[in-house]
Amino acid sequence: MSSDRLIYLPLGGAGEIGMNAYVYGYGPKGKERLILVDIGVTFADMETSPGVDLIFPDMSWLIQNKDRLEAIYITHGHEDHIGAIGQFWDKLGAPVYARAFTSNLARHKMRDQGQPEDAITTVSAWPETTTAGPFTVGFLPISHSIPESGSLVIDTPVGRIIHTGDFKLDETPVVGEAFDPELWADVSSKGVKALVCDSTNVFSLQAGRSEATVGPEIEKLVAASPNLVAATTFASNVARVKTLAEAGQRAGRSICLMGRAMRRMVEAGLETGVLTDFPKVVSPEDAQGIPRGNLMLLVTGSQGERRAASAQLARGKHNGLTLKEGDTFLFSSKTIPGNEKGVFRIINQFSEMGVDVVDDNSGLYHVSGHANRPDLEKMQDIVNPTMVIPMHGEHRHLREHAKLSEAKGRASIVAVNGTMLDLTGDMPKVVGSVETGRTYLDGSVKIGAMDGIVRDRIRMALNGHVIVNVILDEDDEPLGEAWVELMGLPEVGSSNAPLVDVLEADLTQFLGRAGAKTLADDSKLEENLRRIARNSSKDEIGKKPEVTVIVSRLS
Amino acid sequence: MSSDRLIYLPLGGAGEIGMNAYVYGYGPKGKERLILVDIGVTFADMETSPGVDLIFPDMSWLIQNKDRLEAIYITHGHEDHIGAIGQFWDKLGAPVYARAFTSNLARHKMRDQGQPEDAITTVSAWPETTTAGPFTVGFLPISHSIPESGSLVIDTPVGRIIHTGDFKLDETPVVGEAFDPELWADVSSKGVKALVCDSTNVFSLQAGRSEATVGPEIEKLVAASPNLVAATTFASNVARVKTLAEAGQRAGRSICLMGRAMRRMVEAGLETGVLTDFPKVVSPEDAQGIPRGNLMLLVTGSQGERRAASAQLARGKHNGLTLKEGDTFLFSSKTIPGNEKGVFRIINQFSEMGVDVVDDNSGLYHVSGHANRPDLEKMQDIVNPTMVIPMHGEHRHLREHAKLSEAKGRASIVAVNGTMLDLTGDMPKVVGSVETGRTYLDGSVKIGAMDGIVRDRIRMALNGHVIVNVILDEDDEPLGEAWVELMGLPEVGSSNAPLVDVLEADLTQFLGRAGAKTLADDSKLEENLRRIARNSSKDEIGKKPEVTVIVSRLS
Repeated sequence: MSSDRLIYLPLGGAGEIGMNAYVYGYGPKGKERLILVDIGVTFADMETSPGVDLIFPDMSWLIQNKDRLEAIYITHGHEDHIGAIGQFWDKLGAPVYARAFTSNLARHKMRDQGQPEDAITTVSAWPETTTAGPFTVGFLPISHSIPESGSLVIDTPVGRIIHTGDFKLDETPVVGEAFDPELWADVSSKGVKALVCDSTNVFSLQAGRSEATVGPEIEKLVAASPNLVAATTFASNVARVKTLAEAGQRAGRSICLMGRAMRRMVEAGLETGVLTDFPKVVSPEDAQGIPRGNLMLLVTGSQGERRAASAQLARGKHNGLTLKEGDTFLFSSKTIPGNEKGVFRIINQFSEMGVDVVDDNSGLYHVSGHANRPDLEKMQDIVNPTMVIPMHGEHRHLREHAKLSEAKGRASIVAVNGTMLDLTGDMPKVVGSVETGRTYLDGSVKIGAMDGIVRDRIRMALNGHVIVNVILDEDDEPLGEAWVELMGLPEVGSSNAPLVDVLEADLTQFLGRAGAKTLADDSKLEENLRRIARNSSKDEIGKKPEVTVIVSRLS
Repeated sequence: MSSDRLIYLPLGGAGEIGMNAYVYGYGPKGKERLILVDIGVTFADMETSPGVDLIFPDMSWLIQNKDRLEAIYITHGHEDHIGAIGQFWDKLGAPVYARAFTSNLARHKMRDQGQPEDAITTVSAWPETTTAGPFTVGFLPISHSIPESGSLVIDTPVGRIIHTGDFKLDETPVVGEAFDPELWADVSSKGVKALVCDSTNVFSLQAGRSEATVGPEIEKLVAASPNLVAATTFASNVARVKTLAEAGQRAGRSICLMGRAMRRMVEAGLETGVLTDFPKVVSPEDAQGIPRGNLMLLVTGSQGERRAASAQLARGKHNGLTLKEGDTFLFSSKTIPGNEKGVFRIINQFSEMGVDVVDDNSGLYHVSGHANRPDLEKMQDIVNPTMVIPMHGEHRHLREHAKLSEAKGRASIVAVNGTMLDLTGDMPKVVGSVETGRTYLDGSVKIGAMDGIVRDRIRMALNGHVIVNVILDEDDEPLGEAWVELMGLPEVGSSNAPLVDVLEADLTQFLGRAGAKTLADDSKLEENLRRIARNSSKDEIGKKPEVTVIVSRLS
C-alpha cells in the first residue's frame, strides 16, 4: 500500500536528558500501528518542581491512541527508561517486552503499583525477535552502565531501524555482554534505514574508556587504605558494584551492602544470572563486629540524595555504622549537573569528621556509560545508516549530533518531543506535531506541569503568603477588623511595628471607608484587599507577597 | 605586655565559598583592637533560600564590638569581598581602605545605600601603608581575575602576616600588575609569621594558566566567525573584557557592551586608569545599523542569570538586538557549580535559534583566577611562613590545604567561621568560638537564616498550603461550615471530589461533634482542625500540607 508510512514520534527524552519515551508507527496516515520504546521518569528539583515526587512524560497522545498500540519495549533498566511503566501500564494496556534483567526490575515496578507482573514478557537477545503489528523487533546486546542493555533492531515494511537506547562501545564491560562490532556489522549488512541514536555525550571529545579500566585503580586505592573504606556508585551499575566488592575482597575485607537499591540490584543480578561470583556479603549488624580495616561498605547515594546511605553516614550513624577520622570514602561516580551542592554537602560533612574523600576529580575511579563523540562516529561507520536521528539529549546535544551526522554525509534532523517524523523515504520529514509536556506525580496524584499548582508553590516560596480574613454581617457591614496571618514573611518591617499590625490597620481603614457597593461585591472587595495587602507589604518589607483573601458573610 | 595576643577570627568565607569576612585583633584578651578584612556577600538559591535577595555574614559579633574596630580593608572588588560594605558600614562605622579600582566600586555601593562615599579611603600599593591601632597594613599587588587585587601585609607587634585575598600567580595578566615573585620574596625576607591563604582551587592539580593564554584562541575564534559574535564573561574580569574587545576590533568588528555591570566595570577601569586603550564602543542603537559580520557584543550573564543580557538574548530581543542562525555565542567563563541548569537553559535556547555556542568545554577560552595546588605550594615556597592558615573555601578545601601545608612542614589548622585562633606563638591555637551564620536580605529587611521565615517558605513550596477558616458565635457554637482555601495543591484527589469539599466536610463534621470545652479553647481547636486537614489531605492526595487555621469569634 503506497499510502502507508513509517513514523517516529518522541514523547520524552528528545530535548532533555531523562524520561525517555519514543513511538514508532507504520500504516496509513493517522492509523499507523504503534510501538512504544521506553517509558521513563525524570527527577524533580526545588527550582522548577518543588514538592513533586517524580516526573513522567505527558502520555496523553498515546493513551488516546492506545487501541493502535501493539507493544512496549524497554531497552534497559535505568529509571529514565523504565521508571514509569508501573504508573502507566494500565492506561496503555499493551504487552511489555524486555530482557531478563530489565524484566526483573520491571516486574517489581508493576507489583509496587498493583499492576500484573505477567504483563512483562522476557525475551532473549538477538536473533530472537517478537512481532508487534507491522514490526519485528529484536534486542541486540550493547554495552552500557547496567546489565543487558539492548539496542532494538526494528524491522519495518520499508526497512530496518536500529534504536540504540543508551550505550557505549565497551569490549570489556566486566559484567554482561561486550560490544561485538562483528555482530553489529552483520546485523547492519543488508542496509539500515535509520540509526536512532543516544546523544548525551556528543560533547565529550575523547573516545570513551572501558569499564575494565577502573578495576586496577580501585584495587590500588582500597589496598592502600588503612581503615574502613566506604564506596558509592549508581546501584544499577552492577559491573562497578562487582568491581568495588572484588577490590574489597582482595584486600581481605568483608563487604557490606547498604541502601535498598544496592541490595535490590545485586539481587536482580544474581536472580537473572547476569551476576556471578559476587563476593559474600555481611549484614550491617555483623559488620559492626568486624575490625574497620577489614571492612568495606558499598552504599547508595552517589548523587548526594538526602535519604540515601551516603548522606546518612555523612550526618552520623546508619544501620549502626559510623565513619571516623582516617576512613576513606570513594565516589566511584560522576556528579550529574544540578546535584553538585548535595554531593559537596556530603563531602564537607565527611571532611569535618576527618574522613578522606576520593571523588572523580582524578578521573581514575569512574567511566561514563555513554558513547562519546568518536564512539558515535564509529557507530555510524559500523551501521552505515541512511539517516541518523539523534535522540536522548537536550536540544544542544541533538543539534550537535545532527551536525556531526551531516558532516559524515548522512541525512539527519533535530526532532524534539512532539515532533512527528516520516521516515518512509531516504530523508526524514516533519509531518506533524503532537502536544507533549510533563506530568508530575505529586504525592499520590498526577498533575500537569502547566496546571498552575507548582507555579503557586514557587510563588509562595519566593514571595511568602499573606492570608486576609474579613467578616461581614447581614447588612454587608464589616464585623470587627480585618485579620491577617503571615507565612514565610518577616515579622517586622521598616516602620518597626509588627507587619501583621500594619496590614490589619491598612485593611481595616479601607473597610471603614469602602462604599456599600464594594462591600457587597465579593470579587471587588477581594481585589481591593489583595492590592492593599500587597502594596502595604511592599512599603514595609520591600516585597509583594502572595495574598489569599477570605471574605465570610453572615447571612 | 606579655598578656597581649594576636587573634584571627573568620566571620564568613571559611567553610564556604563566598561572603568573605575576616577579623584580626591584637591586645589583651577580650580587649584586642580589631581590623576587618573584606565584607562580602553570597547569593541565594531556590533550594536553601528561596525569595532571598542577598546573603551576608552574620556580623553581630563585630557590631557588638564596634568600639574596638579600627579599620576595614577590602582586598578586591568581587562581590564576595566587597558586596556588603554599603549594607553594614553604618553599623560598623570604621574607616575603609582599598586600592583605587576597588574604592571606585565601593563608593558606588555606599551611594546606593545612602552611606557616605568619603568613608572610603583610596590607598596606593605597597610600600605605602596605613596604621590601624596596633596594625600597620599595606596592599601588596597580586594577580587575580579583577584589577588591583591586593594581598595584605599586616604587621603586628608579634610579627608579619600576609593575608592573600583571592589570587593567582600570573606574570602576564593583560590588565594590571603582574605577580612579582621578587617583590614577594623581598617582603617576606625578614620572616612571615602566618600566610592566611585562598583555598578555593586546592583540588586543581595542574598549575594555573595565565590570562594571556586565552587571547590568541579568542582571536582565532572571532576571526573565523562569519556572522555576529556575542561573548560573555564576568564583567569584573576587565582583562578578559579587554581581550574580547580587542579580538573583535582586530577582526574589524564594532564593540557593543550590553548589561549594566559590563558598562560599569569598563567605566571603573577607565576612571581609575587601570584600563587603557580600550577599543571604542558603540551603543546598542548604533549597533543595529552595523552589518552582523562586523559586530561583536560583550554581554553580562555568564552564569545564566535570568535577567542578564545573555538570558534576554536567548529568550529573544535585548536592546533591539537579536541573535540568529549562524551567529556565534562564546562563554569565556566557567560555570560555577549550582549554575549549570541556568547556563544550559540558555545554551539550549540558542541551539533552538541555530546559534553556535562555544563554551569552556575545550578549555581554550577561559582560565581561572585562583591559585591551583602547585601555585599554592609555590606561594608557600616564596613566602616561607611559619604557619599557613587556609581561608576562603569549603571545609573540604580548608582541610586539603591544611594537609598540604603540613606535608610541607608548616604548622596549619582548619579554622571555620566563628573559630577564634591565637596566632601569637609559632602554632595556631583555638582559643574561642563566636556565633556566626548568615543574614538574609529579604526585600528591604534583614532576617536571620534561622528565623524560620525561609523554612516556612520552603515548607509551603514542598507541601502546599491549606487555609482553614472557622467562625464561632458568642456561645462558641460554629457559625456555618468550615471554609477551606488551597494554594499550591491539586484540586482533586483520590475520591474524585474536589479536595476543598472533602476537607470542608471532614472539618465541619468535626465541629459538629466537638465538645464545648474544645470549641472554647483556641489552641485545642486549631490543633484539631490542623490535624484533620493534614490527615484528610494525606488520604486524598498523599501529602500533608502546611495548614493555617483562622478561628474567628463573634464576641
